[in-house]
Amino acid sequence: MPALQAGPEIERLIQLLSKLPGLGPRSARRAALALLKKREVLLEPLGNAMRDAAAAIKTCEVCGNLDTTSPCSLCGDPRRDAHVLCVVEDVADLWALERASVFKGKYHVLGGVLSALDGMTPEKLNVSTLVARVKNGVDEVILAMNATVEGQTTAHYLMDALEQTGVNVTRLAHGVPVGGELDYLDEGTLSHAFKARRAI
Amino acid sequence: MPALQAGPEIERLIQLLSKLPGLGPRSARRAALALLKKREVLLEPLGNAMRDAAAAIKTCEVCGNLDTTSPCSLCGDPRRDAHVLCVVEDVADLWALERASVFKGKYHVLGGVLSALDGMTPEKLNVSTLVARVKNGVDEVILAMNATVEGQTTAHYLMDALEQTGVNVTRLAHGVPVGGELDYLDEGTLSHAFKARRAI
Repeated sequence: MPALQAGPEIERLIQLLSKLPGLGPRSARRAALALLKKREVLLEPLGNAMRDAAAAIKTCEVCGNLDTTSPCSLCGDPRRDAHVLCVVEDVADLWALERASVFKGKYHVLGGVLSALDGMTPEKLNVSTLVARVKNGVDEVILAMNATVEGQTTAHYLMDALEQTGVNVTRLAHGVPVGGELDYLDEGTLSHAFKARRAI
Repeated sequence: MPALQAGPEIERLIQLLSKLPGLGPRSARRAALALLKKREVLLEPLGNAMRDAAAAIKTCEVCGNLDTTSPCSLCGDPRRDAHVLCVVEDVADLWALERASVFKGKYHVLGGVLSALDGMTPEKLNVSTLVARVKNGVDEVILAMNATVEGQTTAHYLMDALEQTGVNVTRLAHGVPVGGELDYLDEGTLSHAFKARRAI
């Protein structure tokens, strides 16, 4: 792509915007132009919001969540049940569960999944802190890994690592997603949904 | 959507990101998370780039382009032919033509199109500056409006406004886009392409 001849500041803005997930070079240009046209209502506030977030963001020392406090607001919330831990791969998964408002216990963010290809070994995940937390009085650990090969491998590894603690380990149910059509589902999901069928 | 409980700085970042074109609430969350995870390589540089761009950006007093200098780098470039003016609706159109490297004259950015619905009257467009520039020694004005009703209305208005100056006014060719299939083209385009057919 030829240079725009539009000043190095604009070039750099487009180049950095194109690194955001969901934005390619074309949409990054559109976004940059929208920012430049709305300097006072969008560009300056967003720049300030980024600076504020960069200054305020912390990784929670207890669960690995991203927040502006450490321990994070979820770990510090006395209304949440500290006897149930939900283990997720990533902060995005924690946010997804929080949006669904299905869980009122505490979280533990692994920070990834085991993957020989990507060099993700157990030492690089927050496993030792998980075992330490579980030993400190937890009744149930819910393994909410993604239903991928890596996610399930990681879940098996965690089950082994937690066996010594004698804690109750569960995983999320597999089945037909709400709103899903059988015709479009893979055999694995259908097989799980059949095996785990329930009386109505 | 329930609040995330992830600190007001993060909430605000997501809310502002979701105002960018091409990003909805869900992709804004993904983008915010990517930014927060890559604080040093993405969040801080992008925040700084936005601040730099906000400080540096200017609207060119000659043509209406956005650049870090005024007159802009295109208006100030002595290699560009000042006798040919290409009139575009928006800076995005100027960028598109520059990427295609098809035009080596100067530009004039109208800043919109005539639209009674949106209250865009001729006074709100950079028309008087266009007429003044044309009177100042221009041989040809290329009206590169979008092929929409508003774009074509604006082009007709500009032709009338420029008539007194006696300048040569042209418009972009209509026809089959390169790579386009006839089957998917509308009747208007096909009709234009037939009427303007050329010997090979």
